[in-house]
Amino acid sequence: MSTVLQADPCNIVIFGASGDLTRRKLLPALARMHHWNLLAPNSRIIGVMRDPSWHAERWQSYVHASLEEFHPDSINDDASWQSISTMLELTIGDLTDASMYQRLRENMKSSNGRTNALFYLAIPPQWYESAVSALHQSGLLDESDGFRRIVIEKPFGSDLESACALNLTFREYVKESQVYRIDHYLGKEGVQNLMVFRFANTVFEPLWNRNYIDHVQISVSETIGVEYRADYYEKAGALVDMIQSHLIQVMTLVAMEAPVSLDGNAIRDEKVKVLKSVRAIPSDQVDRFAVRAQYAGGTIDGKRVPAYRDEPDVDPASTAETFAALKLYIDNWRWQDVPFLLRTGKRLPERVSEIAIRFKQPPKNLFAHIKEHLPQNELVFRLHPEEGMIFLLNAKQPGLNDQLHKLALDAPYAMTGSDSPEAYETLLHDALLGETALFSRADEVEESWRIVAPVMEAWKQPGSIRFYEAGSSDIPDIDTIMEGCIGCWRDLSTVYQHGYTSIS
Amino acid sequence: MSTVLQADPCNIVIFGASGDLTRRKLLPALARMHHWNLLAPNSRIIGVMRDPSWHAERWQSYVHASLEEFHPDSINDDASWQSISTMLELTIGDLTDASMYQRLRENMKSSNGRTNALFYLAIPPQWYESAVSALHQSGLLDESDGFRRIVIEKPFGSDLESACALNLTFREYVKESQVYRIDHYLGKEGVQNLMVFRFANTVFEPLWNRNYIDHVQISVSETIGVEYRADYYEKAGALVDMIQSHLIQVMTLVAMEAPVSLDGNAIRDEKVKVLKSVRAIPSDQVDRFAVRAQYAGGTIDGKRVPAYRDEPDVDPASTAETFAALKLYIDNWRWQDVPFLLRTGKRLPERVSEIAIRFKQPPKNLFAHIKEHLPQNELVFRLHPEEGMIFLLNAKQPGLNDQLHKLALDAPYAMTGSDSPEAYETLLHDALLGETALFSRADEVEESWRIVAPVMEAWKQPGSIRFYEAGSSDIPDIDTIMEGCIGCWRDLSTVYQHGYTSIS
Repeated sequence: MSTVLQADPCNIVIFGASGDLTRRKLLPALARMHHWNLLAPNSRIIGVMRDPSWHAERWQSYVHASLEEFHPDSINDDASWQSISTMLELTIGDLTDASMYQRLRENMKSSNGRTNALFYLAIPPQWYESAVSALHQSGLLDESDGFRRIVIEKPFGSDLESACALNLTFREYVKESQVYRIDHYLGKEGVQNLMVFRFANTVFEPLWNRNYIDHVQISVSETIGVEYRADYYEKAGALVDMIQSHLIQVMTLVAMEAPVSLDGNAIRDEKVKVLKSVRAIPSDQVDRFAVRAQYAGGTIDGKRVPAYRDEPDVDPASTAETFAALKLYIDNWRWQDVPFLLRTGKRLPERVSEIAIRFKQPPKNLFAHIKEHLPQNELVFRLHPEEGMIFLLNAKQPGLNDQLHKLALDAPYAMTGSDSPEAYETLLHDALLGETALFSRADEVEESWRIVAPVMEAWKQPGSIRFYEAGSSDIPDIDTIMEGCIGCWRDLSTVYQHGYTSIS
Repeated sequence: MSTVLQADPCNIVIFGASGDLTRRKLLPALARMHHWNLLAPNSRIIGVMRDPSWHAERWQSYVHASLEEFHPDSINDDASWQSISTMLELTIGDLTDASMYQRLRENMKSSNGRTNALFYLAIPPQWYESAVSALHQSGLLDESDGFRRIVIEKPFGSDLESACALNLTFREYVKESQVYRIDHYLGKEGVQNLMVFRFANTVFEPLWNRNYIDHVQISVSETIGVEYRADYYEKAGALVDMIQSHLIQVMTLVAMEAPVSLDGNAIRDEKVKVLKSVRAIPSDQVDRFAVRAQYAGGTIDGKRVPAYRDEPDVDPASTAETFAALKLYIDNWRWQDVPFLLRTGKRLPERVSEIAIRFKQPPKNLFAHIKEHLPQNELVFRLHPEEGMIFLLNAKQPGLNDQLHKLALDAPYAMTGSDSPEAYETLLHDALLGETALFSRADEVEESWRIVAPVMEAWKQPGSIRFYEAGSSDIPDIDTIMEGCIGCWRDLSTVYQHGYTSIS
């Protein structure tokens, strides 16, 4: 890891420091970064919270407990914990209270040579405006003596209109270059690898277009149900929760042209071009491009699980979708008429995330006497459970015959065990270094809301929800949007054997 | 193996039945075919030999001893051997004696319903003409009641002139469609797989040309010395023994256009087009296109081994090359200016055979700040020791860094152990079925002699031989012919790890 850059000393200010995200993700990620020497020792982790019953000692033990639970390795010796604990600061006060920001400024000043600040807004989106305007008013966003960056989490709005309004608000107080919108999907190794595969290799780009690719399938399949997120999920549903953000982001990385450079804005310029080229789904034909469904009761891993409507905090007549699939077309020279199929759902039989490029048939089948239709070539980037790449090819079946077999060329590419960085670690590290490529720019967010807007509108009709059994991948009407594509939806339960495989 | 066709009943007539090839290769291959039920039970294996001291019983025990030594599985129960032994017939007599062919005809007639004949000339090439003309004279090549095929072994001539003369002789007595010229290299699984990979997959053809391929390396590296073949090898050398036949054949399969069909002649038509397009090596510039050397004494696997000149039956002043390398250009639209590098040698450090396609660099290196020159993409078909395919790609090094790593995507594709067919089994089976694709046509043979002719001529100058140490891959001047190619000769000692590899 010696080639990894250590960030300059920074005040890492977490608004909402007593919340779930801080405890589960941010503190463990910061502890890992500290372990790998990626945080300058002179950095500070400053928790901001409203509750006046908090004090320095409680903050220390809260952090300790969080690390013990979510990343025990980081504090397995006294020196490690000692060194983390000296970074911790606490500022108590209300987000809307100007004096809190004065105290925060004092805390940030308490050491020399540390002039940068990263404000992580781990708070509900409705508080974003108050926080940003107050930070602005108190002068804490002024970059004359170092950087001042704001990290926010999705949802970035709840529809196109609110997203535009939110962006407008930010623009009033802060420059776009200071805003880091986290889509933790972009922090995954497999997703980051996509750009490297495409542009550090000669062999993919010549194939990467409508001449050779039949369609692309991007799938995120979960086995969990709505869990503790019903409050949010009832309003969002699978389309907004997953497709509008993560899956469309992944699609842009698959579809984008080679950027001018690896500079964050150069990459995002190309991603936005893809989004702007996505053909608008006609509002009167949404059913041809989108499918949704909600899980009924069923069985997963041998256990009975309740229907979505029977989950805690869910409306018993809820029409929120827990499964959504979308067919998008990118109207440009490279992708015209190549469907991008995006699907995601909860309570499906497997936990699998992958990107599959399915190629067209060879123009002339010399082997028609053996197989009328050759199995399609596929290039699969698996993001979960194991990260890796699989190339499905046709080969001669070994032996004295003229039969064909599928051959799975594969390579795992994840790091194993505890060395593998978590998405939040990658993203926090990039934010501290000012690398913006993995963060969503305002125009990206707006364009992706534009893409899903007609579907959101159509799905306001409550009659349109249908049901699937939890633990089953049998989604009503799911094949409708495969129309015109070669083959069918990939079976995510497939386990590839190294070498020959009988999958046809 | 149920899909493999059983050949029609046939008289398999082996001229030179007491020779080494029969004992080591043909009889074991026939026994395997019998085991897999690929020989019609009514077939006969008729040995032909001159020595009058042979008789039916001795032939039986000779075959038994051969199978015991080279394929014991085939006779591990009495029933198997019983069933093979009933197929055996013997004809004694001289090749030039007309009455021998009368006796042979009687032997071939001895059972009803078996009208086909395959004549395997496992005899020195100088006897081919006598045998073929006598077969013709005795009417044994007349196909009115079944097929009559002649199988011959290389060398097909010893230079362009003698090869043309040999073809002319054959043409006098037999149709080209009756002649099966065996190049056992074409019977190897990995070689046969080449056509399937290229034409049963969509993803290779778009890359398979001068736009993306920098050059091709075809390597056959042996650890053995000249062994018992000095008599032949002294006249032939590595160029004739390996390159003129096997390596140039493999090159045509890599380079050919898609054939009209998989019909033998359709494929050979395309192969001949490649051979005819090979740019003639200018006789005054052979050194720029060809390198040769001879092994001196050295060490292999810790054992001292003698110099070639000290081997039994080798002239102590021999200038025969035991290593040869050739750079060929194919002057057509697909391959103009793409070097095909062919190399082979004895007493090298490894026993490896492979075909490596090395791709050009990406047109724009976005990662120049990390690696000034990206490692080349390579697609490697390994024929030996393990048969398999390796795709060398660049990927992101896992973890919090922006480094690149090589990723080896691989798949083994051989069958394991005793199920894997030997080349001779494949080729005999094809010859019995009349499948000609894996046999060399007269024009192929002539064209490949034409290609090596200027090199053979230049190498008649005894001064041109240089030496390498047995067990070393350090061949004098070998890099001369790599000029203008990206990278260097592949290191054949490389063992690929599945997944990430540190090879750069």
